[in-house]
Amino acid sequence: MAYRAAVAGASGYTGAELLRLLESHPSFVTSIATSREFAGRKVADVYPNLRTDLAYTELEPSALEDADVAFLALPHGASMEIGARLAKAGVAVVDLSADFRLKDAALYPEWFGKDHIAPEALEDWAYGLPELHRDEIKQARAIANPGCYPTAAILALAPLVKTGLIDPASIVVSAASGVSGAGRKLTNDIHFSHVDANFKAYGLPAHKHTPEIEQELGSLAGVSVRITFIPHLVPMPRGLLATCVANATGDDDPAAAARAMYDGEPFVRVLDAGMPETKYTLGSNQCLLGYSRDLRTGRVVAVAAIDNLGKGAAGQALQNANLMFGLPEDEGLTGGGLYP
Amino acid sequence: MAYRAAVAGASGYTGAELLRLLESHPSFVTSIATSREFAGRKVADVYPNLRTDLAYTELEPSALEDADVAFLALPHGASMEIGARLAKAGVAVVDLSADFRLKDAALYPEWFGKDHIAPEALEDWAYGLPELHRDEIKQARAIANPGCYPTAAILALAPLVKTGLIDPASIVVSAASGVSGAGRKLTNDIHFSHVDANFKAYGLPAHKHTPEIEQELGSLAGVSVRITFIPHLVPMPRGLLATCVANATGDDDPAAAARAMYDGEPFVRVLDAGMPETKYTLGSNQCLLGYSRDLRTGRVVAVAAIDNLGKGAAGQALQNANLMFGLPEDEGLTGGGLYP
Amino acid sequence: MAYRAAVAGASGYTGAELLRLLESHPSFVTSIATSREFAGRKVADVYPNLRTDLAYTELEPSALEDADVAFLALPHGASMEIGARLAKAGVAVVDLSADFRLKDAALYPEWFGKDHIAPEALEDWAYGLPELHRDEIKQARAIANPGCYPTAAILALAPLVKTGLIDPASIVVSAASGVSGAGRKLTNDIHFSHVDANFKAYGLPAHKHTPEIEQELGSLAGVSVRITFIPHLVPMPRGLLATCVANATGDDDPAAAARAMYDGEPFVRVLDAGMPETKYTLGSNQCLLGYSRDLRTGRVVAVAAIDNLGKGAAGQALQNANLMFGLPEDEGLTGGGLYP
Amino acid sequence: MAYRAAVAGASGYTGAELLRLLESHPSFVTSIATSREFAGRKVADVYPNLRTDLAYTELEPSALEDADVAFLALPHGASMEIGARLAKAGVAVVDLSADFRLKDAALYPEWFGKDHIAPEALEDWAYGLPELHRDEIKQARAIANPGCYPTAAILALAPLVKTGLIDPASIVVSAASGVSGAGRKLTNDIHFSHVDANFKAYGLPAHKHTPEIEQELGSLAGVSVRITFIPHLVPMPRGLLATCVANATGDDDPAAAARAMYDGEPFVRVLDAGMPETKYTLGSNQCLLGYSRDLRTGRVVAVAAIDNLGKGAAGQALQNANLMFGLPEDEGLTGGGLYP
Repeated sequence: MAYRAAVAGASGYTGAELLRLLESHPSFVTSIATSREFAGRKVADVYPNLRTDLAYTELEPSALEDADVAFLALPHGASMEIGARLAKAGVAVVDLSADFRLKDAALYPEWFGKDHIAPEALEDWAYGLPELHRDEIKQARAIANPGCYPTAAILALAPLVKTGLIDPASIVVSAASGVSGAGRKLTNDIHFSHVDANFKAYGLPAHKHTPEIEQELGSLAGVSVRITFIPHLVPMPRGLLATCVANATGDDDPAAAARAMYDGEPFVRVLDAGMPETKYTLGSNQCLLGYSRDLRTGRVVAVAAIDNLGKGAAGQALQNANLMFGLPEDEGLTGGGLYP
Repeated sequence: MAYRAAVAGASGYTGAELLRLLESHPSFVTSIATSREFAGRKVADVYPNLRTDLAYTELEPSALEDADVAFLALPHGASMEIGARLAKAGVAVVDLSADFRLKDAALYPEWFGKDHIAPEALEDWAYGLPELHRDEIKQARAIANPGCYPTAAILALAPLVKTGLIDPASIVVSAASGVSGAGRKLTNDIHFSHVDANFKAYGLPAHKHTPEIEQELGSLAGVSVRITFIPHLVPMPRGLLATCVANATGDDDPAAAARAMYDGEPFVRVLDAGMPETKYTLGSNQCLLGYSRDLRTGRVVAVAAIDNLGKGAAGQALQNANLMFGLPEDEGLTGGGLYP
Repeated sequence: MAYRAAVAGASGYTGAELLRLLESHPSFVTSIATSREFAGRKVADVYPNLRTDLAYTELEPSALEDADVAFLALPHGASMEIGARLAKAGVAVVDLSADFRLKDAALYPEWFGKDHIAPEALEDWAYGLPELHRDEIKQARAIANPGCYPTAAILALAPLVKTGLIDPASIVVSAASGVSGAGRKLTNDIHFSHVDANFKAYGLPAHKHTPEIEQELGSLAGVSVRITFIPHLVPMPRGLLATCVANATGDDDPAAAARAMYDGEPFVRVLDAGMPETKYTLGSNQCLLGYSRDLRTGRVVAVAAIDNLGKGAAGQALQNANLMFGLPEDEGLTGGGLYP
Repeated sequence: MAYRAAVAGASGYTGAELLRLLESHPSFVTSIATSREFAGRKVADVYPNLRTDLAYTELEPSALEDADVAFLALPHGASMEIGARLAKAGVAVVDLSADFRLKDAALYPEWFGKDHIAPEALEDWAYGLPELHRDEIKQARAIANPGCYPTAAILALAPLVKTGLIDPASIVVSAASGVSGAGRKLTNDIHFSHVDANFKAYGLPAHKHTPEIEQELGSLAGVSVRITFIPHLVPMPRGLLATCVANATGDDDPAAAARAMYDGEPFVRVLDAGMPETKYTLGSNQCLLGYSRDLRTGRVVAVAAIDNLGKGAAGQALQNANLMFGLPEDEGLTGGGLYP
């Protein structure tokens, strides 16, 4: 029998991707899909790519409590209350916003401009990056699903920070994402005619995904870490690349360190040669990694490619749910990337 | 136990899409993937989106005969010999080229510039459009998988031709395909800098997919049919739209005719409102249909959207294989389109 | 000394393209650029591609009357009043909306849902397609600049209709435009993530550009003409292709007819071989034409490529202004298309 | 009277862009356009965007010597001999390859794998970045036109290095280019279906443009400089963004330093707010700059946007030619970027 999955905020790109993945998942069945904008309409009329007979409903917290697992794909800030309520009620919950990712409550006012409403609950939320926190996730009832940029940057850098191969104070992450990372909201910045054949940096001087990366790398390094993180916008719907540069502390091979750390991981692959390209991860939960040493400057370059809606959001959320429910970690997530 | 599937020509886009679909199929397992260009290399090194451990091999006809089913994704003309041999040997074979699609042997020299080498065998090949030839496909051992343009144009027009709703002599098909339809071969026409932000017609005055459409529509109409077919190239990797125009013979509702004909079909959906967009079919085996009547001119417009590599090639090939082996018709093909 | 040019609605794509072209024009200088949205802001801050020191102002009809020429790049319907006022005041005016294009006042309620406010003035407006109405344009003080689709379709078909080479009752125009044709307004339809790698038909059953094409072709044919016109959206910022199909009346060469008609035209070129591609017109006032005969079906295919913001809007407006002021017709418009 | 300009290698993207710019230039007229691939064919048949009547010819060194100025748009390595010959013959020459950019002859074998054939002539070639070497260029007869990445990176960083605002040992340049930067040559890497919706890093660990950046920044710093430079490929035809990060030495405002250095420059603009986007430079010779300070990490971020074929190649070559011939520096280059 399948577990009932509720998706709150199921009309955004991340929510719709969750619906798509859940349609093919053998152990979960979507029981609720909420959308303020489309409540009352059939999901397959709004998203003709989907095949479900479900209709969108308004978000009702009590209805979510009846599900076996609730995925919250709500705007940042909107998950705090409902997330805390569901966690308290004991419903398995995976929150895809930034609302529960930072362990240090003091960071919320600094980075998001307001205090956290349930700081005492933050320790109950597992940071849902299975490659770093698998055991904790298996025991947890509440998962803070990582951001797309942090997923890529942390997976690329974790082996190097953990083994002391780089100086964590020297990390510069220059990353680039497809446009779906900005959500479905209409702004001048996402007009096709503006975005197409255009490339730019944004979010300077400090993007809100920064403290999440610092938290996880700092935890691995055993010291407080401050990084420079510069996101860019690529004219493509999906895909995310993190190009990370840091000073090497010695001559060790970064790719070997990554292979050692990710041996047996179902979704992380260190390339034998060449550098990862985002296209190979399209629609999948894969993360491709590549490493290079610049002997002239003594720096290491670590590159990660993911689908920002896959391993960077909905795919990873499902990976986390699989772990919480004792299912095979890759159930419903074995598909390769769509190419070309 | 899974059936062993061989994919000949598995390094082209269609072949690689077959490999991707087979990876997730419960009843087939890829046993052979041939490629002249990449023989000896691991598939997952050439296509890092795939997860298989298989390595490419040279095309050996005898090896294909050991498979339960052979998918031929070879260039047009290259399938004729091996296809005829496999059919004669009794191996289930799905040929994705144009080499066995036309029943009338006289059409091969006219459209392809050379005689068919096995004209007497043509009647043994079923034209693999399940919505028109399902029963025949179930009994067949050899399937000629339809072209991408024909799949879309025939599905859009079949209900109108069959019910006499349009005058078959008046049909004009203006269609447009993503660039993967032109294959992986390097030509000036597929250089990114040339194709991007570009739109053009090609293949005039008469594209090689024309007789296939005429054969099937003529068969439905009960008279010989000649159409004007104009393909265009769209700056996108995948997706195909066929916009078909014809003179109405009366006032009947074309959408109603299509709904009646395709009721219960797993992969064809007539939209309730609006017109199909290619994006909603991305990576799937879906065909979306929309109809409009222009009362001012007495014409009907029928539009079909598919993924040229999905329902237009590899997806449909697998649908045909499912039918040949008595499997559920949509096995391994239930995934919705990737959006966005 | 330069003529003072006012651009009303200078923050839309068409208006901004006019500003760009006027910056390089030797005989016009932009004196006013109006924008409700950006009034008070410097143009070069809103459009960093431009180099002017001008700031946007609110639209003041009296201010426009002080200019030597007023270009109206306002939304459809918004030009009617100001256009009629300027024409009455004797200011040279080029209106880029549909508000004055149709000679028959009865067509406005039929196609645009409301009566024309100055039906008696319609005969004073020249239809600004110089290749058909050059002499009239030279004498006119008020120009209705053609729509982008009509410009392409009429230029492709005019030689065939005029010489009786095709049956005008059989015309089907399947056209496709880049996204800037839909303007700068934010709608779900222009979200990058939705439009990219997507292709669709829209505006069915009858797009508002239809009567304009019928008016001009009917005038050339000497009989009332009704066409089927089906626009499509291409995932590219600019560029427009019109693929026109009609029944041939005989065996005459359509390309020869076009060459005869457009001999000496500065902006229309009939290709010696092959079919036009939109990319070669990017940013220019060029129109490329190609013709094909389908002997099997007795049909002719005529294809035109333009830049929808160039010859399809701002470029043609400037060509018209050049003619009105007795300047060389191609002044400021000699640049070739940007490639790639 | 116009100067006769020869373009060697006029069928590549850079050469074709030179032809386009020369068509509109009041003081130069293209007298020769060479192409091995297209010799004998009319330029406007190969590039229908162009309007010239010229036909391509084979490359004849003696013919180039008859021109007033020769632009060499040949593959790297192919300019060395002809460039040295023309320089010796006293013909004004602008070489767009890397063959004469490095002053230190020892760097050629290190970075390009072979010795320079005319090391003694290197000091006669001016490095054609007018913002740094204007006086030298005006006196020179031979110009080494900078690479596209170096143009952007040097313009972004020069004010910071020159004023000591950053530590030159800490520079990391993460840059991204449109696909035309890779030239017209057909490789799997430029297939539309592969490139579209794809993003990747390439050229690691050390791209050949690196020493050029180091030479110029080192000269400004007065010390030897080694940088980490990581190029990326963006799915767009044109446009280049350089995102440069370095440790600040103090609290000075980087934008103010850039404004001071580039005051009065015709083609460099430091934005008042926000960060540059490549699209605003499309088809133009503009360079847009933006700066940000990350107070948390003590780093400065400098971003430059150019058109890789404009200021990054053909536009800058023409700017250099203007300077050599005593013409207004921006003659033929005043056009704003094409948007959208």
